[in-house]
This record gives sequence, structure tokens and C-alpha cells, in this order.
Amino acid sequence: MKPSETMNARLRRNRDKILRAAEKVFLNYGFRGSNLDEVAEVAGVSKQTVYAHFKSKRELFIAVISAMTGEAADEHRSRIESPTEHGPVDSYLTKYASELLSVVLTPRLLRLRRLVIGEAERFPGLGEALYRNGPASSIARLTKYFEERAARGELMIHDPQAAATYFNWIVMGAPTNQAMMLGDKSVPKPKELQKHVVESVRIFLAAYGPNIPKLR
Amino acid sequence: MKPSETMNARLRRNRDKILRAAEKVFLNYGFRGSNLDEVAEVAGVSKQTVYAHFKSKRELFIAVISAMTGEAADEHRSRIESPTEHGPVDSYLTKYASELLSVVLTPRLLRLRRLVIGEAERFPGLGEALYRNGPASSIARLTKYFEERAARGELMIHDPQAAATYFNWIVMGAPTNQAMMLGDKSVPKPKELQKHVVESVRIFLAAYGPNIPKLR
Repeated sequence: MKPSETMNARLRRNRDKILRAAEKVFLNYGFRGSNLDEVAEVAGVSKQTVYAHFKSKRELFIAVISAMTGEAADEHRSRIESPTEHGPVDSYLTKYASELLSVVLTPRLLRLRRLVIGEAERFPGLGEALYRNGPASSIARLTKYFEERAARGELMIHDPQAAATYFNWIVMGAPTNQAMMLGDKSVPKPKELQKHVVESVRIFLAAYGPNIPKLR
Repeated sequence: MKPSETMNARLRRNRDKILRAAEKVFLNYGFRGSNLDEVAEVAGVSKQTVYAHFKSKRELFIAVISAMTGEAADEHRSRIESPTEHGPVDSYLTKYASELLSVVLTPRLLRLRRLVIGEAERFPGLGEALYRNGPASSIARLTKYFEERAARGELMIHDPQAAATYFNWIVMGAPTNQAMMLGDKSVPKPKELQKHVVESVRIFLAAYGPNIPKLR
């Protein structure tokens, strides 16, 4: 401990070390195959220190899920901030979708997702943490955006949350579900992803854009 | 063995018994938690008999995946055959989507899906079997339908497989992914599912129906 370091700073530093170690251990050995001894060893702290921060393996894994998905959400947010947010709807949605795909379709996050789904029945808290910080957080953000744009007449949306949920799965459905079952090798190349994004935005705006066609 | 029973009939009967027993064992204990001794016991056959049909636990699980998803596909097909197939596109897609959701969103198939995703990295054959018999088979069937309807000018589709993939995930994306993470309790009630189906078909036809709107 550096002499100038406060108690709080040391606690935070240890917590970060434990979280980074736990991510490695869980992603390598799965939830059931991991234990706190191994996490303590990889983190270079005592098992007591791990327990001082996290009451159980379950609590530690939930913290890892929140940290990983939270970082991904921050990364996504930082890539698409203004001025895109204030420009045309189609440009914003295109940027939003491309960056979302490039943040989510990474081996670390795909592995986390498979791991959590595999344990979701036995440990419901894990699946809830992933859903809350993953799809639900992205959908909440889009909902707000759609509310604003609908209020300005730029979108024809009566239920912004439903519309945000559709946009999310038009974009994320095929690539994430393929990756879940077929592995990382199924993730499309950037050029194909870009084509997919353009078509996703077209589909969404055909349904919710300002000129809804009369259907039969 | 009944005296009139042929050798082939007995083999088929044993195979079915083993598959039904294996489904129970795998869904209860997971892939790694299961073994062939347990399957033989539940099936009421010898372990030798199990091995005479399936070379390994992996091969048996792939057969269970194919059987479960194959039955689901047959069930779906039987519910939506003609005359719906020859009627208006919107009625067909509505029926197609409702029946697909009601077949797929059942506890047995959702549990199978979680189990397979959890093991997909370690045993890629499992994920491939589920994808091939699940989404890929449904998408292939829709692709054929879209080709026919596009040829008759009832749909504006240049890439029928891509369009079928979008329709599949507009319909399946939200409910299946929620169920993966949040469990069976997240599956919407029939009335909500019906609303979701109607909106899904509307979105799809806004993008691919005969009257594509001019977007800005």
C-alpha cells in the first residue's frame, strides 16, 4: 500500500483486481467450474479479501456481468454521442446499430452470454443481470430517442418501447443467435454487417418512418 | 419381444425408448451431468443396447436435439398447411408466426436451447444440430414461400433468404432471447403474443410488401 493511498482507493483497486481476475476465471472454466480460491490466486489477493468484497461466487459473477456489460454500454455510448444524436434519424440508427454490433459481437461478450444462458435456470440472477445491462439497457435508451423523435413528427410511433424492442432484434437477432449456436466463426465480416445494418434501418423506417404505406 | 415383431421394428422401438429416456435425463441433469448408465436405466434397456444405437453421449444428445426439433418442425408444418399457404400473404405470415411461437416457446424446447447454448463452445456439433433443425429449417421454408410470392409480384424481395431471416428474428427475437435470459416466466401471454405477431407482420410487409413507401 502506497503511503499516500487512502483506504477507499485501496478498496477500489482490490475490487477491480478481483473483478478482472474473476472475468478470466469464469470465462475459462464456466460458473460451476470456477471457485473463489482460483479467483484469489489469479488476483494476487487472499481469499479473505475476495470475501470482504463479495459474499458469494454468485454475487461475484453478477458483479462481473455488470462490469463487462456496463463497459460495453459505455463504449457504445461514447462512440455514438452528439452530433449524430441530433442529426437525421436514419444516420443515427445506422450508426447506433453498427456500433452496437461491433461492441456486442466480440468473443468475450459472446462467451459471457453463452455462459449465462447455460446457467440461467439454476441461477436466475445471472440471466437477469445480463438482460438488464444488455438488451434492456439498449432498448431503454432507444425508447427515449424514439419518444423525442416521435414527438417531433419524425417517426410514427405509438409505443416507443415496442418499437425500440423491434429495432433491437431486427439488428441483433440473426447475428447474436447464430453466434450463440454456431460460435464466433459465424459472426459476419464487417462488410456484410454493414449491409445488414442498412437493410435493418430500411425495414424499421418502412414501418415507423413518417410515410407509412397503406397496407391492403 | 412380441413373436410377430420384426428385427427392424424392435430396433426402432428400442431407439425410441432410448431417445425418450435421454431427453428426460439430459433436460434434467444437463449434458455434462448426464451419463449413458442413467439413460439405460430410465429407458429400461442395457447399456450395451444404448451403445448399439449411439456411439457416444455426444451422438445421443445430437439425436435428441434432432428428434425434439424435428417433431416441433413437423408440428408447426401440420398446423399451417394449405389452404392458408395459398391465401393472402398477410394471413399466411400471421398464422406462420403464431404457430411458430406457440411451438417454440414451450418449457422443453426453451430448456434444450439453453442447454445447447451453454455447451456450444465445448461441443460445437450440438449448437450446429440445433441451429440446422431450428432457425435454419424455418428460414429455409419461408425462403421458398417468399420466392414464390415474389415471383407473383405479391412481395418486393430481391434476396428471399435475407428477407426470411429478418421475418424470423422480428418474430422470434424478443420472446426467445428474453426466455433465454429471464426464464419461462418471461414468455408473454397468448394475447400479447398475438399483438406481437400482428405488429411483426405489419413491419415486414411495410418493408417488403407490394407498396414500398418512398423514404425521404
